[in-house]
Amino acid sequence: MSDVHTVRELRHDPIQKRWVIIASERSRRPRDLCRPDGEGQGSPAVEARACPFCAGNEEKTPREIWAGRGSGGSPDGPGWNVRVVPNKFPALAIEGELDREGVGNYDRVNGVGAHEVIIETPEHERHLPDLSVDEFASVLAAYRARLLDLRGDQRLRYVLIFKNYKEQAGASLAHPHSQLIATPVTPRTVAMELETARQHYNLKERCLFCDILRQEIAERARIVQIDEHYATIAPYASRFPFELMLMPRRHQHDFAFLNDDELRQLAFHFRDVLRRMKKGLGDPPYNFVLHTAPNTGGQTRRPTYWNTLDVDWHWHIEILPRLTSVAGFEWGTGYYINPTPPEDAAAYLREVEV
Amino acid sequence: MSDVHTVRELRHDPIQKRWVIIASERSRRPRDLCRPDGEGQGSPAVEARACPFCAGNEEKTPREIWAGRGSGGSPDGPGWNVRVVPNKFPALAIEGELDREGVGNYDRVNGVGAHEVIIETPEHERHLPDLSVDEFASVLAAYRARLLDLRGDQRLRYVLIFKNYKEQAGASLAHPHSQLIATPVTPRTVAMELETARQHYNLKERCLFCDILRQEIAERARIVQIDEHYATIAPYASRFPFELMLMPRRHQHDFAFLNDDELRQLAFHFRDVLRRMKKGLGDPPYNFVLHTAPNTGGQTRRPTYWNTLDVDWHWHIEILPRLTSVAGFEWGTGYYINPTPPEDAAAYLREVEV
Repeated sequence: MSDVHTVRELRHDPIQKRWVIIASERSRRPRDLCRPDGEGQGSPAVEARACPFCAGNEEKTPREIWAGRGSGGSPDGPGWNVRVVPNKFPALAIEGELDREGVGNYDRVNGVGAHEVIIETPEHERHLPDLSVDEFASVLAAYRARLLDLRGDQRLRYVLIFKNYKEQAGASLAHPHSQLIATPVTPRTVAMELETARQHYNLKERCLFCDILRQEIAERARIVQIDEHYATIAPYASRFPFELMLMPRRHQHDFAFLNDDELRQLAFHFRDVLRRMKKGLGDPPYNFVLHTAPNTGGQTRRPTYWNTLDVDWHWHIEILPRLTSVAGFEWGTGYYINPTPPEDAAAYLREVEV
Repeated sequence: MSDVHTVRELRHDPIQKRWVIIASERSRRPRDLCRPDGEGQGSPAVEARACPFCAGNEEKTPREIWAGRGSGGSPDGPGWNVRVVPNKFPALAIEGELDREGVGNYDRVNGVGAHEVIIETPEHERHLPDLSVDEFASVLAAYRARLLDLRGDQRLRYVLIFKNYKEQAGASLAHPHSQLIATPVTPRTVAMELETARQHYNLKERCLFCDILRQEIAERARIVQIDEHYATIAPYASRFPFELMLMPRRHQHDFAFLNDDELRQLAFHFRDVLRRMKKGLGDPPYNFVLHTAPNTGGQTRRPTYWNTLDVDWHWHIEILPRLTSVAGFEWGTGYYINPTPPEDAAAYLREVEV
């Protein structure tokens, strides 16, 4: 076969108006991809010794960007409870100027952005549902810190924080961690949500998410968990069985503006939801994504919706258990077939005792 | 847990403007979904006896809708080479009037549509790459026949033909088959492609797909296979490793208008591409979807782009090997990270000897 060259860039599909990150690694040859089943995640005991995210192995990661150190310790040494490091195999790299160009029918941007790993705990086998509320809150505090820091970077349009749990959901390391990818283009789903929310506000002078929450609280059927501050629902048009959406009950457009009290309240609620999923669904693989406000700091040209973000946008977390597979119909239509009505999913998770 | 009730309807997500089919089956309880690994596909010999798609087992499917019977035989008996039957567990049902209604912030349509199975061969273990050109062409003739038949149904906006190959790509039965789902709403990806193609035509009076083909033929780097009639490329902004797009070289907007000669030429080309994938990538799981023109027959209200379909639309087949998994970043952004540059994928598949 031909030589594999290293590419790291964003490419635009002119038919679907969709950006794709092409990020080849030199070690990856086509043949390496031909085993979709994977190999399982190995024995935890063996892994912990070699795990780059475990306490004591700090030298196995690139230098840390941020850490929560309640009990002291110095950078890149032990003593941390949450630690943020650059991804060793980044999809996008933080160095360099943006370079946007057309290539015939196509468009490309060089692969500038950020790709970070948030190591949620020094312990290899304690996952989010196992953390104390304080520990969970410091993971959320790491999210907040990174959002605030990257917000000033004028090259970046959006910072996505997400988690892949278990190999079937895309995790390549077993140690508890989330990820952050910042892109020089606004993601399509976020742009769609921003646009829809703005249209709704323009028409009604009400937040779309607040309206949805009001209807869900009145109907009750799709509420999984609700307390004074947060609500988690199974969305009316859920794509997947047991898909969930967590939202603040009070209108709030930016996750990064949460204070420490609000982070602790969120940690309590979020952990409860993850515990219900773990116990009720047999610790399934899942993804979650945080949809907060886009990067507006320091941008000289901004889409018009950025001026009204504070009234028409409402941050939320989408939680997607991976219990079914996406197949031809979904790829061909952009629509989904879901065998579990969200009313059933919510009723089931409401009754799980945690 | 609460009783699971049967639901079959399309629901609209007001945030993402996306339709979802909620199709619960009575037998499915939440617990049934909690084993995402599946159980493998069993021994072929044992399966063939019980397989509802094998010759001799015709009584195990609902009554056939269409069949290719070169060697005679009567409906629902043996002698067929391709056979189309209703899906026994349909996501959408063909009976009934459309009923569209609003539900607070949401919208719903009752689950009217079509869900059919195209059984590609009477033999349990002969897959598309193993068929003769004539046999492959009769599978394509079945696609054409079903498209033409359903086109007259005024309730239906789109007929999607697709294939899920192997369990990891969503197939629940091992016997070679494709599927058809007809929906009362236009799928989002199709609507996006139609809209983009029309904008391109309005601006340039040229077909977007023809323009792409021209650039690809000039650059050569992403061509996998090309002959007098068809070309298969690895798209510039491929979402997945070894993603492919097959197109007629001559401008042609509607797959259903292909004559028998054109079907045979397509069978020859398509089979060659699938053989390259099978040999070069180790018989991977894959999906393919046919994007042809939407249902325009007999519609009283039609989007404006339908009037110019013949000049600005160009049918094509997307082929998606399932070698990597979709994870948090993809769900959160609608964008993709692809570790294999399409230039490398095309070079690799070009050199496979079939």
